[in-house]
Amino acid sequence: MTRSPLSALAISLGDPAGIGPEVVAKCWDNRDRFEIPPFVAIGDPRAVAAVWDGPIELIEDPAEADSAFDVGLPLIQLLSAQADVPGHPTVAGAHCSLDTLEIAVGLARSGSAAGVVTGPVSKEQLYSIGFAHPGQTEFVAERCGIAAGNVAMMLAGPTLRTVPVTTHVPLAQVPERLTSSIIETRGRTTLRGLQRNFGIAEPRLAVSGLNPHAGEAGMLGREEIDIIQPAIDVLRAEGWRVTGPHPADTMFHASARALYDAALCMYHDQALIPLKALHFEDGVNMTLGLPIVRTSPDHGTAFDIAGQDKADPRAMAAAIRMAAQCALHRCNAE
Amino acid sequence: MTRSPLSALAISLGDPAGIGPEVVAKCWDNRDRFEIPPFVAIGDPRAVAAVWDGPIELIEDPAEADSAFDVGLPLIQLLSAQADVPGHPTVAGAHCSLDTLEIAVGLARSGSAAGVVTGPVSKEQLYSIGFAHPGQTEFVAERCGIAAGNVAMMLAGPTLRTVPVTTHVPLAQVPERLTSSIIETRGRTTLRGLQRNFGIAEPRLAVSGLNPHAGEAGMLGREEIDIIQPAIDVLRAEGWRVTGPHPADTMFHASARALYDAALCMYHDQALIPLKALHFEDGVNMTLGLPIVRTSPDHGTAFDIAGQDKADPRAMAAAIRMAAQCALHRCNAE
Repeated sequence: MTRSPLSALAISLGDPAGIGPEVVAKCWDNRDRFEIPPFVAIGDPRAVAAVWDGPIELIEDPAEADSAFDVGLPLIQLLSAQADVPGHPTVAGAHCSLDTLEIAVGLARSGSAAGVVTGPVSKEQLYSIGFAHPGQTEFVAERCGIAAGNVAMMLAGPTLRTVPVTTHVPLAQVPERLTSSIIETRGRTTLRGLQRNFGIAEPRLAVSGLNPHAGEAGMLGREEIDIIQPAIDVLRAEGWRVTGPHPADTMFHASARALYDAALCMYHDQALIPLKALHFEDGVNMTLGLPIVRTSPDHGTAFDIAGQDKADPRAMAAAIRMAAQCALHRCNAE
Repeated sequence: MTRSPLSALAISLGDPAGIGPEVVAKCWDNRDRFEIPPFVAIGDPRAVAAVWDGPIELIEDPAEADSAFDVGLPLIQLLSAQADVPGHPTVAGAHCSLDTLEIAVGLARSGSAAGVVTGPVSKEQLYSIGFAHPGQTEFVAERCGIAAGNVAMMLAGPTLRTVPVTTHVPLAQVPERLTSSIIETRGRTTLRGLQRNFGIAEPRLAVSGLNPHAGEAGMLGREEIDIIQPAIDVLRAEGWRVTGPHPADTMFHASARALYDAALCMYHDQALIPLKALHFEDGVNMTLGLPIVRTSPDHGTAFDIAGQDKADPRAMAAAIRMAAQCALHRCNAE
């Protein structure tokens, strides 16, 4: 792969007992085939060595990653209080995963790294050590000085990008949580994110309805009329290219997808079902609205298969490639 | 195509001003390429002639369809009170579409036809003439003496079958409409339907959750614990092969789909989003729980493109093929 003028990406390995170390190592192994640009991993080298026999190049600064990358897996060492066994998460490992995340974000914030790719952490483990954020995204936002409500979670695959307006809330609470204001905010974050990270000058946003058939003119629910349409009108008045509300079931086939750059969906499964149906193996979770580039593979720690050489590295590879492409778009725009 | 020992299928042309006549005619045109078995259309020959120059063979009994099929499009004539212009629905056309549906169902009920494929009707037009059912499905159920609550709408494509538990209700009403009883009923109808129509002796049913991540052990909603799991337990105790509740977003990629014969979904878009994302052009709507075979293409009248030679016949072709296959499975089982 052609080396870019950018600094290396920083990758937090995530929970040392999860599959993060394994999929990162496999990405380095397959760096030519997966077209992986230089990166530096942050974490405990013992977590990598426990699941992988390849060479690790300990470095201290992302600037060294470029030359180290041909020799071994570049890694900034952060030793956990104990060496975890794959598949057996510990409190020490949870602390380590949080520290590596913090370092990776710091490197990107300072400009030493071109962006951050975050390996999978265990929310249960983090909660057990007092972690007070819903997930890594909110933590990264806070460390970047951005209110959690002003970032957006984008799920992206090769032929589809979706952004859910509401995320991890019970379905019964979705209608009451939807407001025109939150739809406008997520819409703007998405549109600006498409410009900034993907280099799309005039991004097209397709907004879904909430109800079957987008409410069928009010017969099957009024949220489209009372909440969603007014938000679309506001965004259009600001000059954005926005369509909808569209019936969600006719938005995601190939010819429909060709008409927009991202779909703004009203709830978690409306955004995640089509994305994973189409791009399960290489879906990327990207946080929009941050001053830095941040992606992650769209999977968890998978403790049940950690250390068994079963983990599929394709989602991590896609997350790394997307982070590099977005960093380049941002660099070119500056 | 090899002729089967079955009688012909009866196809109601639907609203004469919609695309029904056009897609049925195109199926006859492409009968070899689409592998279309002999059928008889029911409707106004003027609606076909208005959009198609091919030969129409007027017959009076489905038994004549087999020999007529090589000569022209076999059609049992039902003249509308006026000859509609494509794209311009009328009250007369609505009456005609209802009468053709009734005749087609009657032919299947009497055994004269192997099954029914219903062309698209306009609900708005039907409501305007006093039609009191939510849609064709409930009308067909009534004519077959089956309570509407005991039939199920299955959406089927080449690699996925889904059945929504709730259908055309506002999303906000979905949680309150879900009961263990309705999930059990739909599950049984689906499982028996897979046996009877698809010849699957021991069908596998995957049941979705309602909430993100299937509620994440109650953190994101309790319907999985309180309503869905008990229904699954009941079905399993009856000996059925049922799994779930599964997170809806990880049910629909290829390797997940390989593990079940149908997915039972909690609401309209949960079932329709993946089906149409994967099989938009050839999705078939099939009614389970009836004494007869009934399919329809998963599209509407499309008055906006009627008469312009733009209508895609692939969904109608898929509906015809599926009806024939299901009729054969039923025949073989008897």
